[in-house]
Amino acid sequence: MSTPVFERIAIIGVGLIGSSIARAAMEKNAAGAVSLFDANAAALARAGELGIGEPAATLEGAVRDADAVFLCVPVGAMGSVAQAGIGAMKPGAILTDVGSVKASVARDLKAHAREGVHIIPGHPIAGTEKSGPDAGFGSLFESRWCILTPEAGGSEAYAAAAQTLAAFWRALGSRVELMDAQRHDLVLAITSHVPHLIAYNIVATAHDMESVTEGEVVKFSAAGFRDFTRIAASDPTMWRDVFLNNKEAVLEVLGRFDDDLTALRKAIRNGDGATLFNQFTHARGIRRSIIEAGQDTAAPNFGRDAPDPPKL
Amino acid sequence: MSTPVFERIAIIGVGLIGSSIARAAMEKNAAGAVSLFDANAAALARAGELGIGEPAATLEGAVRDADAVFLCVPVGAMGSVAQAGIGAMKPGAILTDVGSVKASVARDLKAHAREGVHIIPGHPIAGTEKSGPDAGFGSLFESRWCILTPEAGGSEAYAAAAQTLAAFWRALGSRVELMDAQRHDLVLAITSHVPHLIAYNIVATAHDMESVTEGEVVKFSAAGFRDFTRIAASDPTMWRDVFLNNKEAVLEVLGRFDDDLTALRKAIRNGDGATLFNQFTHARGIRRSIIEAGQDTAAPNFGRDAPDPPKL
Repeated sequence: MSTPVFERIAIIGVGLIGSSIARAAMEKNAAGAVSLFDANAAALARAGELGIGEPAATLEGAVRDADAVFLCVPVGAMGSVAQAGIGAMKPGAILTDVGSVKASVARDLKAHAREGVHIIPGHPIAGTEKSGPDAGFGSLFESRWCILTPEAGGSEAYAAAAQTLAAFWRALGSRVELMDAQRHDLVLAITSHVPHLIAYNIVATAHDMESVTEGEVVKFSAAGFRDFTRIAASDPTMWRDVFLNNKEAVLEVLGRFDDDLTALRKAIRNGDGATLFNQFTHARGIRRSIIEAGQDTAAPNFGRDAPDPPKL
Repeated sequence: MSTPVFERIAIIGVGLIGSSIARAAMEKNAAGAVSLFDANAAALARAGELGIGEPAATLEGAVRDADAVFLCVPVGAMGSVAQAGIGAMKPGAILTDVGSVKASVARDLKAHAREGVHIIPGHPIAGTEKSGPDAGFGSLFESRWCILTPEAGGSEAYAAAAQTLAAFWRALGSRVELMDAQRHDLVLAITSHVPHLIAYNIVATAHDMESVTEGEVVKFSAAGFRDFTRIAASDPTMWRDVFLNNKEAVLEVLGRFDDDLTALRKAIRNGDGATLFNQFTHARGIRRSIIEAGQDTAAPNFGRDAPDPPKL
């Protein structure tokens, strides 16, 4: 068995992502030990019962001996948790996070920077619609990308720390990409934030019409709608914070989305079948690329309606 | 073995839905024999190779001895196929379809009505993003709803024919609901048509931004975007026809969607976290209802990223 990347890590926030890191780190020997803390005492107790790490009585106790501290809390809470915990961290340790927005988190963490602690924001592009310590699993990060946004122009020790953090994520099965925080926020606005907002929005529209349709939205959801409800079932606090903290990029992408939708509405109104057909044809190409890139299953309906074995 | 509901059915159009009906009808003994026809000779030959029914050389040949004829072609082609085939149908037979729009199809079929042929439009709420005869499977309709929109005030023989068609769909594993065609079109606009349009639209928006982001949309699609690309990978011809033929209901629902999205954009712009949180919280309830109604899996990520067995 190889040496773990870190002797000890601390997971602050034992929800879906935090508890998955804890599980994966132990299963894959990426960390020798895992300290856990959560401001929610019930969640922390549950993580202890699940045996995914060592619950600490205080935030300071959790971070004290850790080589890397992972903040797995909503984006809006990163600053205050960093402020409360960074003073107890040991020299040379890494402070990182898993938030879905990076520029605002980088700013909030840096506001509490301390000599000798390496602040390296990060974002594993992985998750499910479930929340809480029971929802995590150790294979969540396999074949998924993890984006790190270290500051440019840091010291040699800082660059080395970033490499060590990258090695940790690779040990969990992730592919790692270094990126500028602003660019991360624009890319994620289109691949994640706006899709989630659209999903929340159409579920709300359907909810308002539900009174008109007396349960029919739920009944006939297999026609497409059910796909949207899955991502719209994600943690509301986490997503509220994403939109409050990636406002500019989200509004920019939403503006483009709106322009495109206006064009499609016009095509429908005018009975312009050629425009509709051409737009719809493009979409198949992107789907194919995603499957080829190993980022989704090729199985029909994501494999959830198991087909019969093919008859030949 | 019980008696089949129909001695012989004819499937016109051997794509995903048509080939699935053919398979299911034989596997579940809902039909004694299945005739097949498709204007696309290669698709018809492939269906013959797959052994899912008896390919006929002509449309007339396929429908001649059938007790029920299923039109499984794009909505815009229903009228011309009905016109070409109805003359060869036998007295007392049923002419039905599987189109995603019902008012326009009812109108187009009735335009070619013939004494003694019962026209009963239908729509199985089932499918995948795949197309063609290889994509079909016999369990596709299990636990899914099938909506029939028979005309009000028909003869006793007509009502009996509608009951027989309902029995056929039940034999395939479906639950059957009778509904007014206009109501069907409004309900499906929200559960299916607008969700598909939104999915196509956001994939197009991402495609336009892809040049900006150099492949990153595909790479980081696991953050939410990949869900949208699945339904946007559906057959472009079928969907073009849906939007051209359910214009009013689609534009009405799109109008409501747009109003709701404007409110969310305003909340983001104003940093109104309470509004965002409340909207996002509602969405979880609908997801739960859909799972309880047996219309989707409760597995995280639709079960496509297999989690480790829980550790306790």
